[in-house]
Amino acid sequence: MHEHRTERRIEFADTDMAGIVHFARFFVFMETAEHEFLRAAGAPDVHFEHEGREIGWPRLAASCEYKSPARMGDVLAIRLRVKRKGRRAMTYAVEFKVGDRLVAQGEVSSICCVLGSGHEDRGKLEPVPIPAFLAVNIEEAQA
Amino acid sequence: MHEHRTERRIEFADTDMAGIVHFARFFVFMETAEHEFLRAAGAPDVHFEHEGREIGWPRLAASCEYKSPARMGDVLAIRLRVKRKGRRAMTYAVEFKVGDRLVAQGEVSSICCVLGSGHEDRGKLEPVPIPAFLAVNIEEAQA
Amino acid sequence: MHEHRTERRIEFADTDMAGIVHFARFFVFMETAEHEFLRAAGAPDVHFEHEGREIGWPRLAASCEYKSPARMGDVLAIRLRVKRKGRRAMTYAVEFKVGDRLVAQGEVSSICCVLGSGHEDRGKLEPVPIPAFLAVNIEEAQA
Amino acid sequence: MHEHRTERRIEFADTDMAGIVHFARFFVFMETAEHEFLRAAGAPDVHFEHEGREIGWPRLAASCEYKSPARMGDVLAIRLRVKRKGRRAMTYAVEFKVGDRLVAQGEVSSICCVLGSGHEDRGKLEPVPIPAFLAVNIEEAQA
Repeated sequence: MHEHRTERRIEFADTDMAGIVHFARFFVFMETAEHEFLRAAGAPDVHFEHEGREIGWPRLAASCEYKSPARMGDVLAIRLRVKRKGRRAMTYAVEFKVGDRLVAQGEVSSICCVLGSGHEDRGKLEPVPIPAFLAVNIEEAQA
Repeated sequence: MHEHRTERRIEFADTDMAGIVHFARFFVFMETAEHEFLRAAGAPDVHFEHEGREIGWPRLAASCEYKSPARMGDVLAIRLRVKRKGRRAMTYAVEFKVGDRLVAQGEVSSICCVLGSGHEDRGKLEPVPIPAFLAVNIEEAQA
Repeated sequence: MHEHRTERRIEFADTDMAGIVHFARFFVFMETAEHEFLRAAGAPDVHFEHEGREIGWPRLAASCEYKSPARMGDVLAIRLRVKRKGRRAMTYAVEFKVGDRLVAQGEVSSICCVLGSGHEDRGKLEPVPIPAFLAVNIEEAQA
Repeated sequence: MHEHRTERRIEFADTDMAGIVHFARFFVFMETAEHEFLRAAGAPDVHFEHEGREIGWPRLAASCEYKSPARMGDVLAIRLRVKRKGRRAMTYAVEFKVGDRLVAQGEVSSICCVLGSGHEDRGKLEPVPIPAFLAVNIEEAQA
């Protein structure tokens, strides 16, 4: 797999007083598309247990360019592609359209980590290789 | 202690396309005021370790009545009072004003719990008595 | 119409550090269900123009009781019912389940308003009767 | 002016189930710091009326690199600097630290626009020069 397509209807709570989708929401939309992709690629869940340890995908970097506004009720067509697949880190390119109109395009890099838990270790992140059962299903999209 | 007062300036991201603060944000404002109160009453943090277990405060119920709109740049004066103090649960009444104008008034009930952690137990909540070192500093406000 | 049913998958950004859906998110879920109901009942959009004025639905009150936690990946079954239909205001009861398990139940009251616009009038809200073309399609659910 | 420094305490609602601040929140933190800067530079508000038209600052682009996690209760020291000042657009560099530890560094570009209002024109954005009374107070930071 190297791509995931989904749709998402803009909700009232996504908007701000300028009448358009608040720019930070696009990062949530990207993350949810990434999680759908990972599930489609065979991850039991976004945070899953693997060999007795909890796996998650904290972000290394995220960016977005805003091309035209999206408004309440618009249906965003979201297309996520695998731009780079590393041993531990992934980079995705994500495109947002309303019909034929380009709304935004972004990129997000996340890294496979074992997550600390409990009061002491919460928030501790230890990078690990992407589990083989998942990595085997993911490939880079062609440019 | 039976009261906590604080202020909060409305941010752009708090608003929606009607040009006012989105109603769900008031619940976040209440929660943050509650957490400030708990810290002032001696909680090391909102989620803290006590006798080797992690303590948190999931909500039992929350409500809010909206009296007049708050807008970008407004400074909300927030007054939280202890309405009921139980052995495990707390109920707070919270009032929001901009100057003399009443904006909203809400109520939130939370319950002291040991939080499960790790993949298996995440989200498990076991009610426990409020730790004595904290309970001793909290009292109900007079009606 | 007196009811609307929908589903919603919990997203990562809906969760908090206790590992469960943040309580304020349920208010957004209620609002989106309400908006879907209004569209199904014939509203062209949630904010629509009627006789040259912009109509919206600010909240009068909202409340929620939390019965059990919802977690990442859970699919919430959401059932919204019309509890009271007034000339201008509506009250909805909303139930959230994961499978057979009750997660939360809430209530929200909103009021049909003409919304001010522009810098001066932004945030001004003038209650008006629910437009007839919409009101005719809405009825109260039986208790 | 070419810089603004502020602090912000992490709130519970800023966190996600990994126990750290959700990555999208940093974009809200950047925006609020930008708005504080603009007010300090003489903007009456973030959205203000100028020559009878409403001015706002939609985003052109935003990016963030995540260096180490921030957790509940941490106090983020935020330093915003003017990286580029154009006739209409601004680019800011923003650094987030907890004590001496670098948490994240981001960049955001926004463009001065007249905002459409009312049902028809909501979300219409027309780029305009930064008003002189504001532009005169802003300068680029040295690299």
